[in-house]
Amino acid sequence: MDQIVYRPVRDEFAYTFGGRMPVAHLRSGDLLRVFTEDCFGGLVRGPADLPSQVCHMPYLNPVSGPFFVEDAEPGDTLAVHVVAIEPARTWGVSSTFPHFGALTSTSHTATLQPPLEERVWVYEVDKPAGVVRYRATASDHTVDLPLEPMIGTIGVAPGGFEARATIVPDTHGGNLDTPQLRAGTTLYLGVAMHGAMLALGDGHARQGEGEACGAGVEIATTTTLLVEVIKGVPTPWPRLETDQTIMSVGAARPLEDAYRIAHHDLVGWSAALTGLGVLDAYQLISQAGRAPIGNVCDPNYTILAAADKTLLPSPTPPYGGAHDRLRQLAAEQR
Amino acid sequence: MDQIVYRPVRDEFAYTFGGRMPVAHLRSGDLLRVFTEDCFGGLVRGPADLPSQVCHMPYLNPVSGPFFVEDAEPGDTLAVHVVAIEPARTWGVSSTFPHFGALTSTSHTATLQPPLEERVWVYEVDKPAGVVRYRATASDHTVDLPLEPMIGTIGVAPGGFEARATIVPDTHGGNLDTPQLRAGTTLYLGVAMHGAMLALGDGHARQGEGEACGAGVEIATTTTLLVEVIKGVPTPWPRLETDQTIMSVGAARPLEDAYRIAHHDLVGWSAALTGLGVLDAYQLISQAGRAPIGNVCDPNYTILAAADKTLLPSPTPPYGGAHDRLRQLAAEQR
Amino acid sequence: MDQIVYRPVRDEFAYTFGGRMPVAHLRSGDLLRVFTEDCFGGLVRGPADLPSQVCHMPYLNPVSGPFFVEDAEPGDTLAVHVVAIEPARTWGVSSTFPHFGALTSTSHTATLQPPLEERVWVYEVDKPAGVVRYRATASDHTVDLPLEPMIGTIGVAPGGFEARATIVPDTHGGNLDTPQLRAGTTLYLGVAMHGAMLALGDGHARQGEGEACGAGVEIATTTTLLVEVIKGVPTPWPRLETDQTIMSVGAARPLEDAYRIAHHDLVGWSAALTGLGVLDAYQLISQAGRAPIGNVCDPNYTILAAADKTLLPSPTPPYGGAHDRLRQLAAEQR
Amino acid sequence: MDQIVYRPVRDEFAYTFGGRMPVAHLRSGDLLRVFTEDCFGGLVRGPADLPSQVCHMPYLNPVSGPFFVEDAEPGDTLAVHVVAIEPARTWGVSSTFPHFGALTSTSHTATLQPPLEERVWVYEVDKPAGVVRYRATASDHTVDLPLEPMIGTIGVAPGGFEARATIVPDTHGGNLDTPQLRAGTTLYLGVAMHGAMLALGDGHARQGEGEACGAGVEIATTTTLLVEVIKGVPTPWPRLETDQTIMSVGAARPLEDAYRIAHHDLVGWSAALTGLGVLDAYQLISQAGRAPIGNVCDPNYTILAAADKTLLPSPTPPYGGAHDRLRQLAAEQR
Repeated sequence: MDQIVYRPVRDEFAYTFGGRMPVAHLRSGDLLRVFTEDCFGGLVRGPADLPSQVCHMPYLNPVSGPFFVEDAEPGDTLAVHVVAIEPARTWGVSSTFPHFGALTSTSHTATLQPPLEERVWVYEVDKPAGVVRYRATASDHTVDLPLEPMIGTIGVAPGGFEARATIVPDTHGGNLDTPQLRAGTTLYLGVAMHGAMLALGDGHARQGEGEACGAGVEIATTTTLLVEVIKGVPTPWPRLETDQTIMSVGAARPLEDAYRIAHHDLVGWSAALTGLGVLDAYQLISQAGRAPIGNVCDPNYTILAAADKTLLPSPTPPYGGAHDRLRQLAAEQR
Repeated sequence: MDQIVYRPVRDEFAYTFGGRMPVAHLRSGDLLRVFTEDCFGGLVRGPADLPSQVCHMPYLNPVSGPFFVEDAEPGDTLAVHVVAIEPARTWGVSSTFPHFGALTSTSHTATLQPPLEERVWVYEVDKPAGVVRYRATASDHTVDLPLEPMIGTIGVAPGGFEARATIVPDTHGGNLDTPQLRAGTTLYLGVAMHGAMLALGDGHARQGEGEACGAGVEIATTTTLLVEVIKGVPTPWPRLETDQTIMSVGAARPLEDAYRIAHHDLVGWSAALTGLGVLDAYQLISQAGRAPIGNVCDPNYTILAAADKTLLPSPTPPYGGAHDRLRQLAAEQR
Repeated sequence: MDQIVYRPVRDEFAYTFGGRMPVAHLRSGDLLRVFTEDCFGGLVRGPADLPSQVCHMPYLNPVSGPFFVEDAEPGDTLAVHVVAIEPARTWGVSSTFPHFGALTSTSHTATLQPPLEERVWVYEVDKPAGVVRYRATASDHTVDLPLEPMIGTIGVAPGGFEARATIVPDTHGGNLDTPQLRAGTTLYLGVAMHGAMLALGDGHARQGEGEACGAGVEIATTTTLLVEVIKGVPTPWPRLETDQTIMSVGAARPLEDAYRIAHHDLVGWSAALTGLGVLDAYQLISQAGRAPIGNVCDPNYTILAAADKTLLPSPTPPYGGAHDRLRQLAAEQR
Repeated sequence: MDQIVYRPVRDEFAYTFGGRMPVAHLRSGDLLRVFTEDCFGGLVRGPADLPSQVCHMPYLNPVSGPFFVEDAEPGDTLAVHVVAIEPARTWGVSSTFPHFGALTSTSHTATLQPPLEERVWVYEVDKPAGVVRYRATASDHTVDLPLEPMIGTIGVAPGGFEARATIVPDTHGGNLDTPQLRAGTTLYLGVAMHGAMLALGDGHARQGEGEACGAGVEIATTTTLLVEVIKGVPTPWPRLETDQTIMSVGAARPLEDAYRIAHHDLVGWSAALTGLGVLDAYQLISQAGRAPIGNVCDPNYTILAAADKTLLPSPTPPYGGAHDRLRQLAAEQR
């Protein structure tokens, strides 16, 4: 096992999945320690730094990578285990953004109304205390919220010769914006291109379900990952596994299609893992499943479908036990 | 305080909110103990009882009531505190239903495909153990799921001379299908008609988020409620309060509109309660809010927006402290 | 054949389909001549009459009726042939309305933005010239648009004991808001209640496709109809027939579901009329069908699916030739 | 003016907009005569050629190009005038495709139902008679439909380093699938990349509104275009102009967002061209606009918003009169 450390310089950031040359090579079992910039490229540092003024399209939501993963071929699955996500600075930032977010008209839900006011909130990130500090802008309320670091954007190159803006979540991963993508989680991504071309960025110190205003508590991070190629097993939509749970991600508009995709995938996956009939799996998940919302602001919205492993009949370990294996490897690193 | 006990005989069940004469009268502070039938009218009792054969439209999703609440006028709010929801039988039932549910084409998401197979699952409800027992139909898997009784359908008469099928959730309440509607929760409903005309039914022993297959673990219940009229305070969409949390309900299609309604309401409500600016409340809820999905199968889908009270600056107690008052009253009943 | 003339006095207008006593009785073959008020109840007569100030919920979108149609029973179809729609005044009116319309956030597509400005446009209705005159409010542009009178709202009582606000389009008809509902068209509505309970209102001197601002050129009308009960033939969604065309109406959100409903119905209807296989009908309509949008502002959006009769293999005349029969009857009236 | 003739050999077809090297260079005023293959790559030629078997992802919907247009820079607009679209063969073909189309569950509107049957329809294209001949597969009905050739897919490279599958319509054009893209129409596309990188394909002998089954009458074509770069004028969404009409295209899900985008753009465009106030333009288009549906099957659905030029106050000719200029040039070619 090698340990690869990568810290991009400015010109190295990527703004798409696909269409880029790799910045480094990885092999199954390698540990990757990578610096990720925040979604604003680190340019929003205080109330006066309005994103629409200091950031310039398309230089939003930079990702670090892509990393070429040896032996990853179309039809395989890339397992990415999140070992750690450490905030790289002592602050995070959030904002409204003109015509972006869930409670505003947007470029697509287009109305004749002027945009909501653009405003920036700066959060103190207190790692020892495990909190981020919210501070109101128009009154003096402050409150501590749990520090729950996550990676907002992670994915591989899409298939079909496509290159997709990093802000888009889809079958290749991308801007999934789900708090479930945290330390301890294994993410499974279907490989669509030789070398997989893994990249990631857009850390959040935390976010609410749906990321209503269009941004989490945006942070730069140092993120540690373990990767493994699972040969000959395709993965149609991103999936997650933790010690307790398996989850499928749906990304689409309207939001019900994200729900449908995630649940359709989880029903089929559960049935395949366990030998349950499809309708029996549908029934079990209908009563025991959870459906945490990721985002309701990105070009595709995201919802997860989640089932506790203990509810399923002694399943074959998903992906041949990749999660447990990587979990074990991660433990050995500490 | 009076205690009203009501057990409908068959002809007394209602199938709409609005358009019905009251079955009994209540006053603020009264305790209502009411029997509710399951969504199938109790007619689906085993695998051979296919809902589309034993049930007949529109005699689905019966509710008990309506109850005329003295002194409730349009512009007031009716607070309904759920004291207890007891399963009335030792079994519950779920099913698929032709062209109804999240993972099937439906009457509205209309396709040319034949319907999914209609099938019934019978659950054992084990109150002492606090579980319901799932049993696969095509293999021998069984698993116990937590018994978490909830009321699926509860509401008042809508305004505008309307009468709405009980299967519809909307501003008046109705088929909200959210697990949050359980013992310990206070529900706030905007009164749109003299006497409010409260009714309820459709208990679930439990349900997954989204109620994917179109049904929960459907049960008859004996449900105990406390009611209070809050004069002169309107409520635009159903709201919930527990000891820890305030929540707004959105009901709409597409699903993102349910999300928008719930979050728009919670942002405004939070700002009004606390003196936070609207954008500050938007930001706080964007980072700290939860958005549990209710249903993705009913004529309107439901999502809740939830915020913990401890995060908000020392708020005025919502609705003048109605929840605490009713909570106290409920405790005195035991 | 009788001729029934009905002009409601103010208190007689209805604001729901269902939940009302009939104002008159009709029989198959009767001619009904009915005055309909505009959607504002005639209260918006100039630029100073802002709808949100002069109108009061729920007294919007009044309909004339309901009319009890003898011999109409659930499971039958009511054929309503539009003989004539005459504007009752020399002016029409349109407006924006706070948080209503396609290019604004709304009560359901809820955002934190303030509403668009509310403004009124008064149109001159020039019947001899066959035009309505648009006049800009902020500059001096005027332009004549064709006078193409239509009925926006027409329907029967819904089933299931429901009463629906007249602003809602659904299976029972209601606020269909399609220009196809003009003189020469026969509308087929599924009867859901004894006597059908036909009502209508909301005339437009014309409207664009989608009724983007939320209102057409709203007029009072004198509308002449012929009715016929078609026994034993159910109609699941509203259908239209002209000399050239058969059409199905879908009403739903999101808008694609309106498209799906309409096309699903038209494919099935065409196949049943002609003996074409369902997939063959799907193919033919996919290449030859039209899909005019009705409204993208009401509680349900509407789209029609239309096919020219000449494209279909010598069909059985729809509904036993009701359209031709009523057409003939109408011609005899002149 | 040069005339460029281009006929791709198999390996030259492109399957994305963006991410490709140009196949030829054009200058403003040049005439391009280009062969386009059908959406199946010409591989579906009879009932036995099921698309899911003879076609292989991602080799679907090939386009010819891209063409580098000299002097086209980000922020400019590329005007593309369609001079002629000639069917290249005497037949066209349509089909259902598993889990693709409007009246089926799909990869995104995911359900547990099996797919609709896959079937192929072959049409005779009779150019002299100006018709295509539909032939039922399960009965003997045939009917002639007007031959109305159109280009389904045309666009430029998207911005932001993206490369998008040709099946996707978006701001850069792509799979717009609208019958309005026919001879005599000028299409305006916002240039997002040096050289614009124009490409086109996916001709249809005709299609119904919405392309319900997922395919038109698919044909190879020889298409003749004139191009002109309009410097310094950006175009946010594709726009069309004919002698009578200006049109904006919206591409999104859900379908109402396509409607909103198109109408938002047309309202703003009309106001800018004519000096009408924005609300006055909103009102005029609400009463006089048309909203033809393009497709309800692609990854984004498309709707157009159309206004007749005669309704607008003596407008500045759009894009400095480019349409008239290209129209004139085209006439000189004949």
